Amino acid sequence: MNILVCLDSNYIKPLKVMLKSLFLNNPDQTFTIYLMHSSISEQELSDLRTFIASLAHTLEEILITESYFADSPTLLHYTKEMYYRLLAHKFLPQDLDRILYLDPDILVINSIAELYNIDLEGHLYAAAYHDKIAVKEINRIRFYPYEIKHYYNSGVLLMDLVALRQEVNEQAIFDFVDKNRSKLIMPDQDVLNVLYAKRIRPMDEKYYNYDTRYYRYYRTMTGREWNMHHVIHHTVILHFCGKKKPWHENYSGEFHALYKQYEKLAFQ
Amino acid sequence: MNILVCLDSNYIKPLKVMLKSLFLNNPDQTFTIYLMHSSISEQELSDLRTFIASLAHTLEEILITESYFADSPTLLHYTKEMYYRLLAHKFLPQDLDRILYLDPDILVINSIAELYNIDLEGHLYAAAYHDKIAVKEINRIRFYPYEIKHYYNSGVLLMDLVALRQEVNEQAIFDFVDKNRSKLIMPDQDVLNVLYAKRIRPMDEKYYNYDTRYYRYYRTMTGREWNMHHVIHHTVILHFCGKKKPWHENYSGEFHALYKQYEKLAFQ
Repeated sequence: MNILVCLDSNYIKPLKVMLKSLFLNNPDQTFTIYLMHSSISEQELSDLRTFIASLAHTLEEILITESYFADSPTLLHYTKEMYYRLLAHKFLPQDLDRILYLDPDILVINSIAELYNIDLEGHLYAAAYHDKIAVKEINRIRFYPYEIKHYYNSGVLLMDLVALRQEVNEQAIFDFVDKNRSKLIMPDQDVLNVLYAKRIRPMDEKYYNYDTRYYRYYRTMTGREWNMHHVIHHTVILHFCGKKKPWHENYSGEFHALYKQYEKLAFQ
Repeated sequence: MNILVCLDSNYIKPLKVMLKSLFLNNPDQTFTIYLMHSSISEQELSDLRTFIASLAHTLEEILITESYFADSPTLLHYTKEMYYRLLAHKFLPQDLDRILYLDPDILVINSIAELYNIDLEGHLYAAAYHDKIAVKEINRIRFYPYEIKHYYNSGVLLMDLVALRQEVNEQAIFDFVDKNRSKLIMPDQDVLNVLYAKRIRPMDEKYYNYDTRYYRYYRTMTGREWNMHHVIHHTVILHFCGKKKPWHENYSGEFHALYKQYEKLAFQ
């Protein structure tokens, strides 16, 4: 299975925790981890390579040079890395036909086989949107007059690379960013939602992009079906969304101890 | 290493979770689990034997017949099982010199080697007391005129069986129970504290009997030293004290997801 990650040095530690959880809970799979980056040092890469190899998987590094995005529009506070996951199909090996992009602030707590093999039914992507009314309304207003039915989270993104190579137009992305500079909050996610929302196959967030801040919300909304037992047995991807991260000193939340347990396993 | 558990059919499921956590986090040890019981069915025992054998450890069953405690005083709401852990040295093989008693509502999340090999310095037991002022005061008043300095929790109890065989007087226990019927809330724990408190070597509860209800209390009292990271790396025994248990539908608490994760591992 092919996994894509795009990050800088600050996220190597969480990446290792994410990978450890992925490998532990998918013992029958062999993974190739494609890492798109521009600034990770050789020593960090070598350490990561060893970590992944020691768990019997493979790392493929894709170094993106400064020059590639020289003519693309930049946004204040954002680096060119915001384009990586949108244009990954241009940098990945041309014989790859499918890849699963994962954010590093994730735990994979069950088998990803069903997610990875989902029938995309002609869509470019599969992704989940967070179905909270407040979130939906804010984004509907923010992107008016673009029509936004759902606001997909781009932290878990299954990609049909063949279709993406045919359809995704680099210049259209740059133009959109250029024209909407003032509106963009999370640029890559915003682009995905405005330009490609109709080409995304929706997935149930509770399985494939469970926002750990909303444990009580999910539980209540499902008449207690999604209690802790159900989450631990059925959720595939726990996503630690938001500014507070479980590797920070002051974090608290229902999945804190579980995260720390995987972190311990990753670094022992 | 010798582990003692005393329970009935209702606690077999949590027992398996406890044992799974013990085995997983002590991969270099071989355990013999001594189970004292009076009513567990042959089918349940056979299932438990298979579970433990499949993880490369051993179960030794000690069936206590009704007749043994025929003349001992009974308390309303309590069965004769309350005497099992106090008198275990009479039923265990006579060549055993040390054993660790563990409640089933426990997770063992790190190595128990240091606990198991602690120097008892001539004491009968090693145990931890929960150092909350309210708890201490209630028990001091409850047992007046007996002097209670600390109120030890009997859920984790390291036993020097040689010393216990010499010192612990069955009749003294029965007499004490008979005389204090109205006062006893948790009979075995009460007996331990009133009759043997001075013969217990105290251990730090944060390592060896961490009351999961008091995460915030421990953290505050230690100037945030015992944050989640520290607990996951240093606590050996998490004890889910109190009426609400993590295998119940309505439980909530900082270690709920972690418990459910071990439960999943135990039953997968």
